[in-house]
Amino acid sequence: MQRLLLASTSTVHGKPYLTYILPELQEFFSGVSEILFIPFARPSGLTHEAYTKIAKKAFAEIGIAVRGLHEFDDPVKAIKKAQGIFTGGGNSFVLLNTLYQFQLIPVLKEAVLQGIPYFGTSAGSNIAGPTIRTTNDMPIVYPPTFDALGLIPFNINPHYLDPDPESTHMGETRETRIKEYHFFNSLPVIGLREGSWLNVQGDRITLKGTLPARWFSLEEIKEIPSGAVLN
Amino acid sequence: MQRLLLASTSTVHGKPYLTYILPELQEFFSGVSEILFIPFARPSGLTHEAYTKIAKKAFAEIGIAVRGLHEFDDPVKAIKKAQGIFTGGGNSFVLLNTLYQFQLIPVLKEAVLQGIPYFGTSAGSNIAGPTIRTTNDMPIVYPPTFDALGLIPFNINPHYLDPDPESTHMGETRETRIKEYHFFNSLPVIGLREGSWLNVQGDRITLKGTLPARWFSLEEIKEIPSGAVLN
Repeated sequence: MQRLLLASTSTVHGKPYLTYILPELQEFFSGVSEILFIPFARPSGLTHEAYTKIAKKAFAEIGIAVRGLHEFDDPVKAIKKAQGIFTGGGNSFVLLNTLYQFQLIPVLKEAVLQGIPYFGTSAGSNIAGPTIRTTNDMPIVYPPTFDALGLIPFNINPHYLDPDPESTHMGETRETRIKEYHFFNSLPVIGLREGSWLNVQGDRITLKGTLPARWFSLEEIKEIPSGAVLN
Repeated sequence: MQRLLLASTSTVHGKPYLTYILPELQEFFSGVSEILFIPFARPSGLTHEAYTKIAKKAFAEIGIAVRGLHEFDDPVKAIKKAQGIFTGGGNSFVLLNTLYQFQLIPVLKEAVLQGIPYFGTSAGSNIAGPTIRTTNDMPIVYPPTFDALGLIPFNINPHYLDPDPESTHMGETRETRIKEYHFFNSLPVIGLREGSWLNVQGDRITLKGTLPARWFSLEEIKEIPSGAVLN
C-alpha cells in the first residue's frame, strides 16, 4: 500500500527547517532508521551536498539518518532499497528534469507503489501529482514533459496564497492562475497553504495541518477543512 | 530597423487598461491606422474575441483600429501585412504554444526584423526575449520549446516584484528565482517593474517609465535608472 506525506512547504515562517512537521514525520517514518534524500530541486541553486546536509540536520532530531541520492553510484538500486524517501523542495522543473535525465521517474513511482514511504515538500510534493502544471516555479530548465509521478489523482499547488485585497500588484493571483489552468486541463487541483500537508495511505487521502486547503475542480471551488478525507 | 515597445504590464493599479502608456503608444504607432492584435495568451481564459474587444477599446482612444489575429483565414499573411502588432499579456506558455501550433514564431520574428512596430505587454513582452524561462506564469500547457522570438539579447521578467520584508510567506522571492535561473542559464535578465517598459530602436534599448529596473547577469545584480540605454 502506498504511503505518502505531501507537504506544502518545508519551513513555516519563524521556525527552523521541517520543525513544524517533525512529530508527523516521526510517526510516518516509524521503524525507519535511514531515509534516502532526493536533493535535485536545488533551492537557491544549492549543491546536492549542501542540500543533503540540511535534511540530515533536521532528521537527526528524530533519530533518522539521511543519505543523498547523489552519493550512490547506482541511483536505481538506491531507490529500490530505500527504507524511506524524502524529496526536498526547490525548483520543480529542475527536479523533474533531473529525475528524467537519470530515468528515475518510473523507478520512483514503482518504489512508492510497493510501499516505501515517501515524504515530499513543495516541489517534492508537486511531482507526486499527475503533472507539474500547477507549480509556482520559474521554468528555468525545459523538462522532456510536465508529466510527473501521478501517485495521487489530482495536482498540487504548494505554498498556496490567498489573494491580498491590499495588493496593488497586477500580476495574476494564484486563484486566477489555477482557473486559467482549468481552461486547458480537467484534473482537479488542491491549493495547499503553508503548514498543510496530505497524508496518503493507499487510496485514502487526509488533509492535515492547522489550515483548510482550497480545492479547484471544473465543477467547483471550495474550502476543505483540515482533517477531511478527500475522495 | 526593428522597433519594439516591451512593457511589464498592460495595466497599472487604479488605471484602466493601457492608459498609463497611451502617450508613448501614440508616438510609437504614429502613422499607423490599424494594428494586428495577438490575443493568444488568453488572460483569465478570455476568448480571442473578448480579449480583442478590450484591446480595441483602448486603442480607440488614440484613433487606431484593432483586428484580432484569429479573425484572419491566413494568419501568416496577416502578420506580414500588418502596419503594427500588439501581443497582449496572459499566460506565456499558452501564448508561445499557440504561436508554435500555427507556426508563427519565425513569421513574427521576420516581420519585426523587417520593421513592423511591435508592442508587447507582460507575456507579449516575455516572448520578445530569447526564451520564456523567466516568466512568472503557471506552466498550464507544454510548449514544444521555451525558445521565443529572441529579438533582444536578454530575457525579461515582467511584473518584477521586490521582496516584501514584512512577508511571512516561504515561497521564493522573485530575486531568488532569477538567481536560480542563473545556475542553469547564462543570459542576463531584466526585471521590469509595473509601469516600466523598454523602447527598442534597432540595437538601442532604452528603459522608460517612472521606475528603475533590476538587472541580473552572471556578473552582477544592479538597479538601472529610467532613461538608461542598455548595451
